[in-house]
Amino acid sequence: MAPAILVTGGAGYVGSHTVMALLERADNEHEIVVIDNLVNAYRADGEKKPEPLKRIEEMTGRKIHFYDVDIRDRDGLNRIFENHSIQCVIHFAALKAVGESVQKPLEYYQANIAGTCTLFEAMRTHGVYKLVYSSSCTVYGEPEKLPLDEGHPTGLGIASPYGRSKYFCEEIMKDLCRSDQKWMVISLRYFNPVGAHRSGRIGEDPAGLPNNLMPFIAQVAVGRLKELMVFGSDYPTVDGTGVRDYIHVQDLADGHVKAIRLFQQPGFSGFHAVNLGTGTGYSVLQMVKAFEKASGRTIPYKIVGRRAGDIATNYADVSLSHRLLGWRATRTLDDMCADTWRWQSANPEGFQKS
Amino acid sequence: MAPAILVTGGAGYVGSHTVMALLERADNEHEIVVIDNLVNAYRADGEKKPEPLKRIEEMTGRKIHFYDVDIRDRDGLNRIFENHSIQCVIHFAALKAVGESVQKPLEYYQANIAGTCTLFEAMRTHGVYKLVYSSSCTVYGEPEKLPLDEGHPTGLGIASPYGRSKYFCEEIMKDLCRSDQKWMVISLRYFNPVGAHRSGRIGEDPAGLPNNLMPFIAQVAVGRLKELMVFGSDYPTVDGTGVRDYIHVQDLADGHVKAIRLFQQPGFSGFHAVNLGTGTGYSVLQMVKAFEKASGRTIPYKIVGRRAGDIATNYADVSLSHRLLGWRATRTLDDMCADTWRWQSANPEGFQKS
Repeated sequence: MAPAILVTGGAGYVGSHTVMALLERADNEHEIVVIDNLVNAYRADGEKKPEPLKRIEEMTGRKIHFYDVDIRDRDGLNRIFENHSIQCVIHFAALKAVGESVQKPLEYYQANIAGTCTLFEAMRTHGVYKLVYSSSCTVYGEPEKLPLDEGHPTGLGIASPYGRSKYFCEEIMKDLCRSDQKWMVISLRYFNPVGAHRSGRIGEDPAGLPNNLMPFIAQVAVGRLKELMVFGSDYPTVDGTGVRDYIHVQDLADGHVKAIRLFQQPGFSGFHAVNLGTGTGYSVLQMVKAFEKASGRTIPYKIVGRRAGDIATNYADVSLSHRLLGWRATRTLDDMCADTWRWQSANPEGFQKS
Repeated sequence: MAPAILVTGGAGYVGSHTVMALLERADNEHEIVVIDNLVNAYRADGEKKPEPLKRIEEMTGRKIHFYDVDIRDRDGLNRIFENHSIQCVIHFAALKAVGESVQKPLEYYQANIAGTCTLFEAMRTHGVYKLVYSSSCTVYGEPEKLPLDEGHPTGLGIASPYGRSKYFCEEIMKDLCRSDQKWMVISLRYFNPVGAHRSGRIGEDPAGLPNNLMPFIAQVAVGRLKELMVFGSDYPTVDGTGVRDYIHVQDLADGHVKAIRLFQQPGFSGFHAVNLGTGTGYSVLQMVKAFEKASGRTIPYKIVGRRAGDIATNYADVSLSHRLLGWRATRTLDDMCADTWRWQSANPEGFQKS
């Protein structure tokens, strides 16, 4: 069997862009195996594969092994590890809507913690100890100081079950690494992923009303939504709106490719948390302006009250990612907006109706 | 169907004493339904019921409904909720060996977190929202100040996956209560349960080498072990050995009976954490002396190095338990030792060979 990389949640937003980044690399000789329960990914009726993976296969001319399996399905996982020579796992599969997690905490803990533990058990059963984990800057809670570096305390003042589930998983992975030196875990703490593959053929396709700023803006620009809601204009920031560290999803995907290479480094082991961000924050209104420029459209917006749990400002210290992974974000805010617009305007209704 | 109380892990140490306390009360008209996967409880070959429950039935003349079911077994749980009119749940079922949890973190997180979430889902499915949870003073981590009151921070500096699993469950229960006001959760943070029912017929029966002090002392006294290991004699305490807040398991069981009554209180809702301790700490050597007096035996001991993760001193602020539950520990250190000795001397090999 050829060596393979298992990507859980590989049909989702960051997952699919990472699959694309892995397959675009000429030096990648790994097969790609994706599992996804399709909670956040579209598959057309009668098709075996979800739409993003079909498009990636078309663009790259390479085959993706796909399994419609939930990470809580122990037997399903074990079959996949038996069918493929998995070398390492990139674990994206999770529920990810902050607001929904407040309403449905049990569902989030079951999917994100119980599911993750079941995956780890399957890995251990099959002697696979190399893991890249999809974490989030929400593990830092309310920032004590900015920029946020990886030494900042985690677990304090996290505002949602979603954020807590990511924090709990990091703690579980630390315990795992303490219990057995064979484990190598790189937990990538994403700041705010936006944008789309430069082809415009894959991108973010949230179900229902978007939770995140960029798809919200994009859906207003394309006429699918009437106006943008801006949550709070009285934060202590450049223009009163919240500031975040937006990172292009292709840069983020490249970060995963770099992370995997660390597993080859002699002596590498244990748990490592690494920020993936640009180190620069932009306000909501700065994002709106940039998107108007990229799209040539006007984005009507309405300022409403703050959203519970939102913080004023957030951006990453990116020195560790450079030092450890040899990685830096290279795409600009204009790239993020132009690529989002290319995707959204070519696929106004997302994958489903395009 | 008669109203019932579901006790998970009801064949274990604290669980069985709580079942006994519930059945001993003349005013208790609830049926008792126990589920237990028998990981920490003995059942004789060919018997349906575990030995502690058989003995409780003999002593009380009352019937216990028993199910050999794991809390991760969703269908098994649902059948029990369908078979009985469960009014509230006392949730003991968990893995509990601190040292083992460091070696086997995934097993602990699966049993204690995934299992607990599955139980909560079954409760919700059947409209049961009243819960007493078996928590631990380990959630406080390294104490910032003593005595430990319920306002002390939790989650910081917890030394084991076991302790983290208890902390994570508390956070999950808080999220549950925020998501739906129907939930009523009382999380009882035990200090160090010791002793046995005054009958001497049920008691603590750890598998393998005891992790906790009192069963270790008792097994040395009865000749099953050669000598006690004392971990560290250079702590800043009265005699250099670690100080803990030991509480008689019958007092602890009574605390659960009181907790259940709170559910009848008008307006009671949400998450409440309550310490169960005596408020007084005793050192290892003080415990040895007290046990020698109660048993009339000499306890040989050897002082060895500190155990990783152990703290010097730990005892509870018990004012909230008094105020909220109307409960106080009434049994003395001499009671704890006398009752332990009665159990251990009548059952030198625990339930199995007596």
